[in-house]
Amino acid sequence: MRAAVMYGPGDVRVDERDEPQIVEPTDAIIRVSAACVCGSDLWPYRGVEDLAWPAAMGHEYVGVVEEVGAEVETVKPGQFVVGSFWASDNTCEICRAGYQSACVNRVPMGSLGAQAEVLRVPLADGTLVPTPDLPPDDLIPSLLSASDVLGTGWFGAVAAEAGPGKTVAVVGDGAVGLLAVLAARQLGAERIIAMSRHESRQRLARGYGATDIVEERGDEGVSRIKELTNGLGAHSVVEAVGTQESMLQAISATRPGGNVGFVGVGHEVTLPGMELFWSLAHLHGGPAPVRRFLPELIDLIWNRKIDPGKVFDLELPLDDAAAGYAAMDERRAIKALLRP
Amino acid sequence: MRAAVMYGPGDVRVDERDEPQIVEPTDAIIRVSAACVCGSDLWPYRGVEDLAWPAAMGHEYVGVVEEVGAEVETVKPGQFVVGSFWASDNTCEICRAGYQSACVNRVPMGSLGAQAEVLRVPLADGTLVPTPDLPPDDLIPSLLSASDVLGTGWFGAVAAEAGPGKTVAVVGDGAVGLLAVLAARQLGAERIIAMSRHESRQRLARGYGATDIVEERGDEGVSRIKELTNGLGAHSVVEAVGTQESMLQAISATRPGGNVGFVGVGHEVTLPGMELFWSLAHLHGGPAPVRRFLPELIDLIWNRKIDPGKVFDLELPLDDAAAGYAAMDERRAIKALLRP
Repeated sequence: MRAAVMYGPGDVRVDERDEPQIVEPTDAIIRVSAACVCGSDLWPYRGVEDLAWPAAMGHEYVGVVEEVGAEVETVKPGQFVVGSFWASDNTCEICRAGYQSACVNRVPMGSLGAQAEVLRVPLADGTLVPTPDLPPDDLIPSLLSASDVLGTGWFGAVAAEAGPGKTVAVVGDGAVGLLAVLAARQLGAERIIAMSRHESRQRLARGYGATDIVEERGDEGVSRIKELTNGLGAHSVVEAVGTQESMLQAISATRPGGNVGFVGVGHEVTLPGMELFWSLAHLHGGPAPVRRFLPELIDLIWNRKIDPGKVFDLELPLDDAAAGYAAMDERRAIKALLRP
Repeated sequence: MRAAVMYGPGDVRVDERDEPQIVEPTDAIIRVSAACVCGSDLWPYRGVEDLAWPAAMGHEYVGVVEEVGAEVETVKPGQFVVGSFWASDNTCEICRAGYQSACVNRVPMGSLGAQAEVLRVPLADGTLVPTPDLPPDDLIPSLLSASDVLGTGWFGAVAAEAGPGKTVAVVGDGAVGLLAVLAARQLGAERIIAMSRHESRQRLARGYGATDIVEERGDEGVSRIKELTNGLGAHSVVEAVGTQESMLQAISATRPGGNVGFVGVGHEVTLPGMELFWSLAHLHGGPAPVRRFLPELIDLIWNRKIDPGKVFDLELPLDDAAAGYAAMDERRAIKALLRP
């Protein structure tokens, strides 16, 4: 089968590899209908994060089940399924509390390589959620987004306690930030401030429910948020970048007692204790427990209540994966969908 | 009047000063029945924090109202009152959300010097809560504790979402940590692990409701908490120290999806972003909005449901304030009460 492999920073190729097989009796094998490139795939691409080269890539996927292990009960061959970027048993105490991304038996799907024709999914019963039927082709991008980027933006908005009567600010206009805007709207937020200086992303943000756009960053961005919130700061701020500047911007833009939901992977972030102390903000975030939200998100997509698939502004055959990475790295594309 | 004044690190004296007068029409003047030395007073005492020397000291107080300004409506001369270490209007949007320690009009009581015979309290209607009657003398230490140390421990437990079915760990066996144990018990926690290596403090912790004691610190302390919680970590962890080690210990001892309530003043803390990200913990803390809890705490004390005053293991006349600072600095006393 064909699969995207990163050989080192900036070097993505599509190779012929052995098809994955059932290893554990709880595994499923799926034929991937669509995969995509994640903002976090750009960390190794840019040399910020080291991998064991060559590395199979990709952790976002939807597809059709081909085969299941002997102990798989709820997932059946022929079903169209969506899974999270963490395989999880969905039965342990941590999963039951809604934190499947920290399942005691979790497996990172990135280690298995979802940018491929065929994928092994561990803990299939816990990880995969079938759609009501085989989806029409135009729903596939939205269903794929639920696998990570929508689920992550949604978690950011939930972690920031977006809801009725709240003013929500979103730091970051990547796919996750844009979908945090969509999530905040779905969760009933009264006012949604998108922080973006790119016209095309601003347009998408408005389409997803942003009521205000702030172009300024850093301290100036914080001042603008304060101006828009009676000097107090937003009730809820979603941080969807992961830099020191964006994290401090998010904390400073939150009113005392408000909530920061952070989903940007903060590789080089160090938070000054006193700043956190005096902010009186709530901080919650990390790798999104997407599995918690999948049934609800699939339902919203299936019934065409939301259209998160619009964040894919580039669609390529899997064989052109390298072009997808380059376009995202150079910010020519928000997010690249790959069709095996 | 007599008042404690710090002239520099390690140098506390009791001076004769002018009695404070009504300045704003929202002020009250109270005759202080008891004040005390706070763990945070030790920061400047130890030279870690700089003040404008000489500095009036103290921000914890109970007393009898002597005089009120023209606009004060709910507080009357002759009443016995408890106030928080922040004066707050209790009417602004932030106060109404329960974050009176970030009131838009807040005044730090420490700047006015509560370790004195007479104290001016700004925003008296918002700040002061009268007791049902003049209290018996043996309730005064407990009522005084509500002014900061009980309210702060309580906030730590609330911020950590201590409650029924939860395992709560408390990092720090100072007065705040011990009262966080008491708070966790009152909030209905199932299991309460006090982290302490001092026999006398362990005894007090057990008396306040601790079910387990962990003597180890740092990574070893975290391992012990994990052992006691099926490998998962505590649901709720209260951080009541404010050092880098204690803060990381608190985060690491919390299960994914759990809650850290931090009330130690983290002067030299910097939190690594990735550690926070992967912990999936909720973080909330800062200067406690004690005013939120005062009516409930006064009620519990008045009806002798709780006995937080036991943390005062040293009682001195105000004139011996220096001895109180020294005893706390050398950890010979948990907390020193001063009687003007």
